[in-house]
Amino acid sequence: MIKEGQLVKVKVLKNILDANEAIASKNKGLFNKYKIFSINLMSAPGAGKTSLILETIRKLKDKVRMAVIEGDVASQLDANKIKEEGVAVVQINTGGGCSLDANMISQALDNLPLPQIDLLLIENVGNLVCPAQFTLGEHKRVVISSLPEGDDKPVKYPIIFTDADAVVINKIDLLPYLDFNLNMVQRGVEGLNPKAKIFQISSKTGTGIEEWCSWILAEMKGKS
Amino acid sequence: MIKEGQLVKVKVLKNILDANEAIASKNKGLFNKYKIFSINLMSAPGAGKTSLILETIRKLKDKVRMAVIEGDVASQLDANKIKEEGVAVVQINTGGGCSLDANMISQALDNLPLPQIDLLLIENVGNLVCPAQFTLGEHKRVVISSLPEGDDKPVKYPIIFTDADAVVINKIDLLPYLDFNLNMVQRGVEGLNPKAKIFQISSKTGTGIEEWCSWILAEMKGKS
Repeated sequence: MIKEGQLVKVKVLKNILDANEAIASKNKGLFNKYKIFSINLMSAPGAGKTSLILETIRKLKDKVRMAVIEGDVASQLDANKIKEEGVAVVQINTGGGCSLDANMISQALDNLPLPQIDLLLIENVGNLVCPAQFTLGEHKRVVISSLPEGDDKPVKYPIIFTDADAVVINKIDLLPYLDFNLNMVQRGVEGLNPKAKIFQISSKTGTGIEEWCSWILAEMKGKS
Repeated sequence: MIKEGQLVKVKVLKNILDANEAIASKNKGLFNKYKIFSINLMSAPGAGKTSLILETIRKLKDKVRMAVIEGDVASQLDANKIKEEGVAVVQINTGGGCSLDANMISQALDNLPLPQIDLLLIENVGNLVCPAQFTLGEHKRVVISSLPEGDDKPVKYPIIFTDADAVVINKIDLLPYLDFNLNMVQRGVEGLNPKAKIFQISSKTGTGIEEWCSWILAEMKGKS
């Protein structure tokens, strides 16, 4: 009985992923039409996605017109923080859903002033498993892995690291207080995904923010 | 088309959850038959489940006969650490799956010496969303929330905190280095789930381990 249930699940999942792919393509079409560069930020809960977005806004909002889509299981906490920076933001609450999907993004885009956006940051639900399965139509996929999570995350959650365009090793300011091997996480990422750009960042001290923002600007330029 | 897909998904999910429930009951029957007290440990990736299990083993293995089931998307890293402590362990790799389910536990139980186990610790996949949906037949559900994840986790991931029997606020040794409001997380948990026992723990310094282990022993006694 269970075996049967599981087979059905796989089939339905495939249908959903196909449908997701179709809507993701539509989203990407909209991004390209309006020359919006979009980044999907994925991480475990509390790895520092919102803080990195806030620092990125502070650094870049005078150079490019920004907007944010916030994904959370519940609450508007993160969207409120973004709003305080004077940037357009849409909050998506997934209920029990463990990832954003393309259809949620499509609905969020209906509520954003597309002709006035150059850079769209999408904060996914805090999760290292589900977001790997759903493409949103984004130009870049970025995984944030923070020091307190330990240096074994690429080995334990390989799928999400494998197709990331960049990996942010975050909360680097905590290095003196943790048993964390920077080489191990770096080698872990390189082993899975040699092309991924790796950043070492602390949103708290500002370490690495300059380099991160320069990368975004360079990628936006390469795209336009 | 998507709407239809989503409806189908809900229906199948219900079937899967019903089937899961049935197998979980079977697991619980086995636990009770062999007088095994079982705890399901759930948290975000890197919140310190394995370290807490290791400290619990060191503290309790002379008092009770222990075993561990390790759940991970990939790798045997955690099972190897447990094995070094001389405790029976089964590693489950879920592939892309974002939670353990009752069927996985049922299969793991086939590979454990049930008559020789008093306390079974089950380490779930690192995830604050999916494990909330799957009961495993366990006696106690424990959520670990570590300081570096931030004090807003109960507000942002309410479902998993709502039916927990206990919440471990972990990595308490990092308090001096973080902007973390202990009151806020405590009130967050109490607001959702006033009955949950709350522990403040550091596996690194040993803070709170004594209280945590005493709670387990008392609950085991209450059960037998």
